[in-house]
Amino acid sequence: MINKLIEKIKKLEAPIIVGLDPMMKFVPGYIQKKAFDEFGETLEGAAEAIWQYNKGIVDAICDLVPAVKPQVAMYEQFGIPGMIAFKKTVDYCREKGLVVIGDIKRGDIGSTSEAYAVGHLGKVTVGSGSFYGFDEDFVTVNPYLGSDGVEPFVKICGEEKKGIFVLVKTSNPSSGEFQDRMVEGKPLYELVGEKVAEWGSACMGDEYSYVGAVVGATYPEQGKALRRIMPKTFILVPGYGAQGGKGADLVHFFNEDGLGAIINSSRGIIAAYKQEQYASYGETGYADAARAAVLAMKEDISGALAGR
Amino acid sequence: MINKLIEKIKKLEAPIIVGLDPMMKFVPGYIQKKAFDEFGETLEGAAEAIWQYNKGIVDAICDLVPAVKPQVAMYEQFGIPGMIAFKKTVDYCREKGLVVIGDIKRGDIGSTSEAYAVGHLGKVTVGSGSFYGFDEDFVTVNPYLGSDGVEPFVKICGEEKKGIFVLVKTSNPSSGEFQDRMVEGKPLYELVGEKVAEWGSACMGDEYSYVGAVVGATYPEQGKALRRIMPKTFILVPGYGAQGGKGADLVHFFNEDGLGAIINSSRGIIAAYKQEQYASYGETGYADAARAAVLAMKEDISGALAGR
Repeated sequence: MINKLIEKIKKLEAPIIVGLDPMMKFVPGYIQKKAFDEFGETLEGAAEAIWQYNKGIVDAICDLVPAVKPQVAMYEQFGIPGMIAFKKTVDYCREKGLVVIGDIKRGDIGSTSEAYAVGHLGKVTVGSGSFYGFDEDFVTVNPYLGSDGVEPFVKICGEEKKGIFVLVKTSNPSSGEFQDRMVEGKPLYELVGEKVAEWGSACMGDEYSYVGAVVGATYPEQGKALRRIMPKTFILVPGYGAQGGKGADLVHFFNEDGLGAIINSSRGIIAAYKQEQYASYGETGYADAARAAVLAMKEDISGALAGR
Repeated sequence: MINKLIEKIKKLEAPIIVGLDPMMKFVPGYIQKKAFDEFGETLEGAAEAIWQYNKGIVDAICDLVPAVKPQVAMYEQFGIPGMIAFKKTVDYCREKGLVVIGDIKRGDIGSTSEAYAVGHLGKVTVGSGSFYGFDEDFVTVNPYLGSDGVEPFVKICGEEKKGIFVLVKTSNPSSGEFQDRMVEGKPLYELVGEKVAEWGSACMGDEYSYVGAVVGATYPEQGKALRRIMPKTFILVPGYGAQGGKGADLVHFFNEDGLGAIINSSRGIIAAYKQEQYASYGETGYADAARAAVLAMKEDISGALAGR
């Protein structure tokens, strides 16, 4: 799947992911109204609204980007109906040929991590059959529990030719609270980065590993250091746009081959119609506004990469 | 909810949690057969089997223990039907008066952590209404992302009078890989413990905070240190039984008041009928075997506490 992701990035000339993090306040009123008319102001109604909203965006951007990243929390908050909307979104995006990165940030120990890996990337055995639970292509994984927590995911990645992105240095303001603490002369995130490179060496695609890393766009200097520590690791970079990251900050996340990183934008794309710049699209044009925002992001990043 | 948990611990004289982590290999053949006859060897069939299995155990132990801890990964691996079984289990346990600790180990940033907190502890707003998604009493939280990731949970805890247990020192063999690394003369888990005490001070019940910690039974010395660092923090202690922890290892997790810790056992209880000691119950007696194992665990822990 890392090979497929890279192939699509090259073909589309777009190292870009759209984050499908549908907050209700982003969903245009007319979509909410239609969903509530059919299902009431209920969890089912909310789930229908976010699903229809997603579908519009996916249809508008699926020929421009290699991958999408649904954030499961935004679905899980609506209970079972929300989880059904998550699964519908994953399945629909895969049908459209998009690589799907489930932003689930799971992580546990031993057989429990294996259950997450099986449920999101692999197949679970039931009697004499086996079934995909959620069936994403990649998922994000939290490393706090150490190798016991990550290796069951790596094992399933090898079996299914799928991948993970392990949290190394996250994009949020307080990420340094633990991740930046100095351990034997280097910050904890570098130690985690070294482990990611080690886990990944056991699970290589053609050029890059099936085991990637998450490093926030908001920390370009740390990205530069981590790029060196993990040369064969694909870096998923959140924090572009709404969180403050810009194209020029991102060049150091890429290798000399122009690969090795993929930049995520969520609300900057899916809620573009709420920005002054794209306001003329109006709420009924929210999907076209998302498409315009993807094109602008692509240009920003290409420009920054060409100019380095 | 921390007050309710403590009240129940005192009344039942049992600082014990039963972990509802239903692996299919634990589910008696006759329960599997009945579920598969009705739903086929499908995800729905598996979900029905684990739900019926859980129900038997809950009925057998609900008068003995204050709380249960369903591990969501064991349900999530069966996709949507599994999540429905998780929700049924949570709802049933609450109906039976048990405190429910959702072992979800979630953690993200800002609005995303808030979505998890809302979905599992609080109510989500839909139009003019608001709804509980999963409605546990406590959940476990991963601290790797720092205060940004934890504070949204603390906020919802305050509003809903519910609680969290933050991962501090986990029970698995490789937990030391990052958690034990020395930062300015002390291990990382102590820094996390200090933050847990700080987060918790903003959200106090009568005697203990709504913000608890997870510290593995397999690390008694670390538990002793953390007990001192977090005097008002309730400690959830996994790793008893199958993972190797014993009653005598556990005394230092408790305060002088005999409170401050709650010990979890999962497969040691729910799969007791597979142990030589309880084999005479047979698979149809799996729930009675679980009850016997709870009584033995209670005696082991009471004895250790009385003898200190």
